Amino acid sequence: MAESDVDTPAEDTAGGGDLPVALADPAYREAVIDLLAVIAYGELSAFERLVEDAKLAPSLEDKLALAQMAGAELAKVQPLVDRIALLGGDPFAAMAPFREALDEFHAHTAPADWYEGLVKAYVGDSLARDFYREIAAYLDPETRELVVSSVEDGRHSELAVDRVRRAIAADAPLGGRLALWGRRIMGEALIQAQRVAADRDALTAFLVGGVDRPGMDLAALGRMFTRLTELHSDRMGELGLEP
Amino acid sequence: MAESDVDTPAEDTAGGGDLPVALADPAYREAVIDLLAVIAYGELSAFERLVEDAKLAPSLEDKLALAQMAGAELAKVQPLVDRIALLGGDPFAAMAPFREALDEFHAHTAPADWYEGLVKAYVGDSLARDFYREIAAYLDPETRELVVSSVEDGRHSELAVDRVRRAIAADAPLGGRLALWGRRIMGEALIQAQRVAADRDALTAFLVGGVDRPGMDLAALGRMFTRLTELHSDRMGELGLEP
Repeated sequence: MAESDVDTPAEDTAGGGDLPVALADPAYREAVIDLLAVIAYGELSAFERLVEDAKLAPSLEDKLALAQMAGAELAKVQPLVDRIALLGGDPFAAMAPFREALDEFHAHTAPADWYEGLVKAYVGDSLARDFYREIAAYLDPETRELVVSSVEDGRHSELAVDRVRRAIAADAPLGGRLALWGRRIMGEALIQAQRVAADRDALTAFLVGGVDRPGMDLAALGRMFTRLTELHSDRMGELGLEP
Repeated sequence: MAESDVDTPAEDTAGGGDLPVALADPAYREAVIDLLAVIAYGELSAFERLVEDAKLAPSLEDKLALAQMAGAELAKVQPLVDRIALLGGDPFAAMAPFREALDEFHAHTAPADWYEGLVKAYVGDSLARDFYREIAAYLDPETRELVVSSVEDGRHSELAVDRVRRAIAADAPLGGRLALWGRRIMGEALIQAQRVAADRDALTAFLVGGVDRPGMDLAALGRMFTRLTELHSDRMGELGLEP
């Protein structure tokens, strides 16, 4: 399928002006819009949940710190929205198919206390970042740069590491509970990611590649999950928790 | 009262480095810390409430717009926190005395729907801005600049004006309800401001001035309230509502 009205004035640009030529492929473009939309809704929903979880903060200082972590997520939404519009998509319609999976993720991982909120913020955010960075390797450079900058670490993770380590040093059973909690977040993330993959053909087709575009075969997908799991374990260790 | 350990190396600076000389007066400094703290907690609580109210948005686009309005409030908190610390105050301890009044304000003005939320965001935010701008006239230039920039319009008011005008054009009774709602917000704001003024001696003493520093006499306070009421009426008119 090639769009009949694609204007390619130069070799490295595609329809709509100065977009990379890769985006002239409608299937790829559709997959990119899906990807940017799921990241955007992920950031927006993470923002909302972090603000909700900030209510559990034991002090105004901690509440502000978590709120600022939320604000950093929110600030990443607009560039994604703008990019989807530039690609000819409707940003909000594009986000709609991902709402259920992400809302379900949050509904199933609602923190019971401040420490569960911190672990979720740290582990969930890092997991999303690792995953989108893996995917970014298969994107055109412009989209890759946007995706990587959209998930970059706001350096707020110190809050979680510091508070959780101090709390479990004073309360060992809390460490056991939070370790289980971290596993649950990882499990819910996998369940919802699986669901999105099953629902969104363009995104899945992009991930596994095609004749003219490299993608991940099953072995590569397996290796990616191994890397994500290892990074998750490292992070649990950083928090002082059993992976 | 003069602090014994104030170091005044130059005429235009006061203790703690390069602070304006006005801040060498401990009573003035205390009032400034109070003022910055009430603004900071006001922004932080407005942020939380706007995110809460964004849940009422009829579309993802409107939700994002209100969330961004909230994010703009949050971004103003850190410079105030930093300034309070520079003045030798504990920013979070300084905010504590204002929590009850501001939390009460929000508890008594919880919007029942999206439009009440928009009117509250617009009217409440503007009222705070007008009030702090009035006060700013009595501040040293550095503090004044910080206060004015902390309450400047994020240009998000178009959202409220556009959405409310369109809604009442299609639903006249809504206009009547929102007009009453706007008055209620103004009333609650006055009740809580009155309460803060009664509780915080340093702030009140600063407002009414002293032998060596101009302030507001009762007539000036009255004129200020007249101006605030007029601006509030103008804004209600902009929304298409009876003041």
